[in-house]
Amino acid sequence: MKINRRLFIKTGLAGAALAAVGCKPNVEEKQEEVKTTAADNKFHLSCADWTFHLFDIDTALKTLQQCDIHYLCIKDFHLPLDSTEEQIKAFHAKCAEFGVTGYGVGPIYVNTKEEVDKAFEYTRKVGAKIMIGVPKYELLPYVDEKIKEYPEIKYAIHLHGPDQDQYQDATVVWEKVKDLDPRIGMCLDIGHDFRNGADPVADLEKYHTRVFDMHIKDETDNTKDGTCIELGRGKIDFPAFVRMMRKVGYDGMCSLEYEKDMDNPFMGIAESYGYLKAVCNLA
Amino acid sequence: MKINRRLFIKTGLAGAALAAVGCKPNVEEKQEEVKTTAADNKFHLSCADWTFHLFDIDTALKTLQQCDIHYLCIKDFHLPLDSTEEQIKAFHAKCAEFGVTGYGVGPIYVNTKEEVDKAFEYTRKVGAKIMIGVPKYELLPYVDEKIKEYPEIKYAIHLHGPDQDQYQDATVVWEKVKDLDPRIGMCLDIGHDFRNGADPVADLEKYHTRVFDMHIKDETDNTKDGTCIELGRGKIDFPAFVRMMRKVGYDGMCSLEYEKDMDNPFMGIAESYGYLKAVCNLA
Repeated sequence: MKINRRLFIKTGLAGAALAAVGCKPNVEEKQEEVKTTAADNKFHLSCADWTFHLFDIDTALKTLQQCDIHYLCIKDFHLPLDSTEEQIKAFHAKCAEFGVTGYGVGPIYVNTKEEVDKAFEYTRKVGAKIMIGVPKYELLPYVDEKIKEYPEIKYAIHLHGPDQDQYQDATVVWEKVKDLDPRIGMCLDIGHDFRNGADPVADLEKYHTRVFDMHIKDETDNTKDGTCIELGRGKIDFPAFVRMMRKVGYDGMCSLEYEKDMDNPFMGIAESYGYLKAVCNLA
Repeated sequence: MKINRRLFIKTGLAGAALAAVGCKPNVEEKQEEVKTTAADNKFHLSCADWTFHLFDIDTALKTLQQCDIHYLCIKDFHLPLDSTEEQIKAFHAKCAEFGVTGYGVGPIYVNTKEEVDKAFEYTRKVGAKIMIGVPKYELLPYVDEKIKEYPEIKYAIHLHGPDQDQYQDATVVWEKVKDLDPRIGMCLDIGHDFRNGADPVADLEKYHTRVFDMHIKDETDNTKDGTCIELGRGKIDFPAFVRMMRKVGYDGMCSLEYEKDMDNPFMGIAESYGYLKAVCNLA
C-alpha cells in the first residue's frame, strides 16, 4: 500500500504563518492528499488484442508501433491454445520486431476442468505472468486449487457488464474471489463496469488489491445501451480514474480495448491513446 | 483584454486566517493568477489543409469528421484561386456534408501586386474572414493599402522557421506588421517558431494582439533539425501553451498542421487531436 506514504498531515500555509507570528491557529488541522503527477504513475499503457480481432497479428503490432505502445495482452485467435513451443517462440519474436511484449493472455473462457488445465498450461508455455479468464462460477473452486500449481501466474477474471449472466461488474467479481487465493482477482473492464451502472473510479479504490489488469475504454452511457467511443468523447471520468490509479499505487497494465468501428478502428485507437497519454501526464 | 479580469489580489489562506485571529500578516501580499479551466477556452480546434496535400478533399474531410473536427483552413490545391462562384459553392456544400466549415484560406504566397489583388479577391469570393498569406517584404506596403478595401478580412502572415529567408519566427513577423493596419498580423506556426529557437508560449503572450491564426504541431527539437512529430511526443509545452491561449483570451482557430508521414498521416493526426483535446480540457 503506497497511499499512506503519500498522505501527510498538513496545517496549510495558514498554520505555518500563524506559528511564525506566535499565534495559535484557529483553523482545524486537516488531512490533505498531496497532488500526484505523472512521475507517480506506476502503470503502463497497453492493448487488449480483442481490439484487433478482425485483423492479423502484423496489423495489430504495426498499429501499436505507430501508437508507441509496447505491451499486448494476447488473444488466442492470434496465438492458439494448442500452439507449439516453436510457434510461441516465433510469435514472441514477431512481437519483438515491433517493439511489443506479449505481457498476458486472454480472455480465455473455460467451461470444464480440462479447459482450466489447458488454459493454465498455455499461459505457462507462453510465459505470461497474467491470464485473463472467464470461468463458469462452479469452476472457481477448481481454479483456486489449480493456481497453486502456477505460483508465477495471476488470474484476472474479466467482467462483462449487463450483457452476460455472470461477472457483470467489479462488485460481482470481488464477491466471488475475495475468499479465494490472493492471486485470483479481476481484469477491471471500466467500460462494462460503467455500463452496469457502477463507478469504475470508486470500484478501483474498493477492490484494487484484486485488480490485476484493466480494459480501458470510454462509453456513451452508463447503461446497457452504452457503446464504446473514442476516449474522452464519452462519459467516463478519465482524469479521476488516472488519479485513482496513482492513489492506490496500481502498477499493472492499462490495456485499451477499443470496440467501435471494429472493421476500421485505427483512427479511434490512435485518438484514444493520444487522449490517454495526455490525461496520464496532466491529471 | 480579458487577462486583468482574471487576476485578483489574493492574500492567501495565511492572510485570511491571520486576519481572523487579529494578527497582522507577516507574509507579503501577492498577485496570483486564478487557475483557468476548459470553460475559459475561447478558441476552436481546426485543421490546416496542408496536412492533406497528398490527398483529395474528400479524404481530408472524412478524416476531420472521424476526428470530430469542424473547421478547415482551405489550401488552393483543394480550391484553386481561379475557382468560379459555382465551384466555391459546391466546395462549401461538400464541406458541410462532413460537418466542416472552411473558415479561412491559405497560405497563399504572393510575389506581385497582381497576386495580392487576386488573393484578396479569392478570399472575398470564398467568404473567408481570414487569409493566411506570405507576401514578399516589399509587398507589405501594398498589402497594407489593399486590406482597407476588405474590411471583413484579417491577413495572417505565416512564419516558417529557419528554412526560409523571411518571416522566420513570431518576432520577425511582429516587427514587420506592428506599424501596419491592425488587421495585418500573423499565423503563429508554433512548430516553426520553436524550430527557430523561439518560445511559442512567450511569443503568444507578447504578440497576441496580432495573432489571428495558428498552426499547431509538435517538434523533435528547437533547431533547424527539428521535425514534426505527434503532439505530446515532442518538445513543445502544450499545457503551457493552452494556458497562455486562455490567459490572452485567444479566440481564433488552432489548426493542426501535421507534417509527419505525409503519405499516411492519419494515425498521427488522430493521436494528435486526442492529445490536444485532453490538454485543452486539463491544462
